Amino acid sequence: MHGTDQRFGLDRSVRLAGHFALDSGSSLDGIDVGYETYGALDAGQTNAVLVCHALTGNQHVAGVDPRTGKPGWWPRMVGPGRPLDPERHCIVCVNVLGGCSGTTGPTSVDPATGTPYAMAFPVITIRDMVRVQAALLDFLGIDQLLAVVGGSMGGMQALDWAVAYPARVRAVVAIATAARHSAQNIAFHEVGRQAIMADPDWRGGTYPSGTQPAAGLAVARMAAHITYLSQAGLAEKFGRNLQDRDRVSFGFDADFQVESYLRHQGLTFVERFDANSYLYITRAMDYFDLAAAHNGTLAAAFAASRARFALISFTSDWLYPTAEARRVVRALNAAGAAVSFVELDSPYGHDAFLLDAPEMNRVVDGFVRAIA
Amino acid sequence: MHGTDQRFGLDRSVRLAGHFALDSGSSLDGIDVGYETYGALDAGQTNAVLVCHALTGNQHVAGVDPRTGKPGWWPRMVGPGRPLDPERHCIVCVNVLGGCSGTTGPTSVDPATGTPYAMAFPVITIRDMVRVQAALLDFLGIDQLLAVVGGSMGGMQALDWAVAYPARVRAVVAIATAARHSAQNIAFHEVGRQAIMADPDWRGGTYPSGTQPAAGLAVARMAAHITYLSQAGLAEKFGRNLQDRDRVSFGFDADFQVESYLRHQGLTFVERFDANSYLYITRAMDYFDLAAAHNGTLAAAFAASRARFALISFTSDWLYPTAEARRVVRALNAAGAAVSFVELDSPYGHDAFLLDAPEMNRVVDGFVRAIA
Repeated sequence: MHGTDQRFGLDRSVRLAGHFALDSGSSLDGIDVGYETYGALDAGQTNAVLVCHALTGNQHVAGVDPRTGKPGWWPRMVGPGRPLDPERHCIVCVNVLGGCSGTTGPTSVDPATGTPYAMAFPVITIRDMVRVQAALLDFLGIDQLLAVVGGSMGGMQALDWAVAYPARVRAVVAIATAARHSAQNIAFHEVGRQAIMADPDWRGGTYPSGTQPAAGLAVARMAAHITYLSQAGLAEKFGRNLQDRDRVSFGFDADFQVESYLRHQGLTFVERFDANSYLYITRAMDYFDLAAAHNGTLAAAFAASRARFALISFTSDWLYPTAEARRVVRALNAAGAAVSFVELDSPYGHDAFLLDAPEMNRVVDGFVRAIA
Repeated sequence: MHGTDQRFGLDRSVRLAGHFALDSGSSLDGIDVGYETYGALDAGQTNAVLVCHALTGNQHVAGVDPRTGKPGWWPRMVGPGRPLDPERHCIVCVNVLGGCSGTTGPTSVDPATGTPYAMAFPVITIRDMVRVQAALLDFLGIDQLLAVVGGSMGGMQALDWAVAYPARVRAVVAIATAARHSAQNIAFHEVGRQAIMADPDWRGGTYPSGTQPAAGLAVARMAAHITYLSQAGLAEKFGRNLQDRDRVSFGFDADFQVESYLRHQGLTFVERFDANSYLYITRAMDYFDLAAAHNGTLAAAFAASRARFALISFTSDWLYPTAEARRVVRALNAAGAAVSFVELDSPYGHDAFLLDAPEMNRVVDGFVRAIA
């Protein structure tokens, strides 16, 4: 359908003109949006699916990331024969506001100064991200979404869609997520931010293009990465196994495989993600609390929604544990919404939603087919 | 009894001469030991208790720390009317090898160079710490211990005492601890070390006396501190409460109480603890695996022990969870040792052993009285 429509396809970008008011009271005049679409929109607009990415994800959910050459981050969920299938769905994935893969963020040029925003970029919220996605869908001519689907921070956006645009969303799939950031969630993010801001190469955010506060950003990633895995998963994968040696070195090299793995995670992350974006996006997550605007009553946030919801959690996810998903389910029940909930058994912690999880795929497939 | 014996009392220190061979193959010629004792040794040597401190603790278990002016770190366990009572026991607490409160460590002067060891200090193990404690007890004329008592890293030392000196220990009390460091334990420590070593003020360990890689050490402490508390405890204590404000600032200040609390933990830690000591002691903990020298069979490590053991864990301690205590108990059972085990209900995570825990105190009191 969209064969000749340049708005649709891989690695798209567009500048959306206009005045974007933000939750903070600040605003942005015009926003660049990096996004990607798969499959064609049908005439009745019954098959559009928005996929929302997590903290360090991007719009390349099922296509190769041209910056890194790496395949998409959710190939088991999106693709031919998958629950979200370009043969049946028109799938849209948008780099979030504040990101660093094509959408306006702290690396973008501030028109007021002609230099990158850096820390002059306004602090944003999950709702601001959702508003930009809605504006992009307007640009694409998509009024109605069959479903909004996301895990982790993507699940926060999915839940927020039902609150912010109740008339545009028929179904929400929120995986390994929560309706608010807990004290522990905030604490881990704060450690990461302090690690970045403690790095002299951060320079108050004004590090030159092509440089990074690499050491600080790597430490932030290492700390966060531990929270993505479970204690049992780490024990199973690494245990106390040594890295390329028979005995400990009695030194500070990476004697243990888990150390080597973490250091690698830190080093490679620095190559693909911007430190200031990390600050802004973690802050948006910390601020997320869907009940806050409703005197703490989460059910009230969902009062206007007519969407059907599917919530999925994983047994070993201690970052967004099942208790947080159940809290959302209880609120949706109280709001009279149709909601399915399943806790899936997995040893892989929070990361489970990005890994091979056939049960998760079956749940999403069945749920989305039932809506369609 | 020891009224005139200068070896006993508060804030003692001694230089132990001799060649100390270390697990690494390195050695130290002479070791300074900072320690503190409470109560008098009885004639039959039936009442000596060694208390072992945790990662960032010191010898001032029940006395004022002259460096900080703060009271001892375990006043509910040690003191008049407490389970370990100077009226009944001769209590000894020793700053660990590698520490920074009077015992030889990386801040000590290397006799080979006349400057602080810094990273030329040999990497040490929990066993090396235990050997120094044994040498100090030799100096004090204490051959027999009624009990060795410790929590966290102190519990590791207590367990190791029964393995290293089975003839000298009648009872072991190991609280909130494990017989090995898990992959997740190692991972969190590695994040802390990387944070320190990423700080340019670390200078490869050669930061001048009176300075610190303060930012990196603070980040290390913040990350570690999260692991000392439970998710539920953080939610109860801080939740999403804001710090001195009615609404979020849309900035990177410490909007949330939990952020303010963590920053404070980081800042105050830097004033009282040395960064290189932190590197060395965390490394010693990571290397700890009592079963390793016995082909992975923990029971074999305890084969020579005739001690009675008390293991205590806390329900919400995810740093050294109950499963690790149970593993020790199973091994002790297999070794034919007398062992008591109790898991105590607490919302306070790993830190529970340092807080007001009447049940813990009752268990320790009953156990130690039964030995005596």
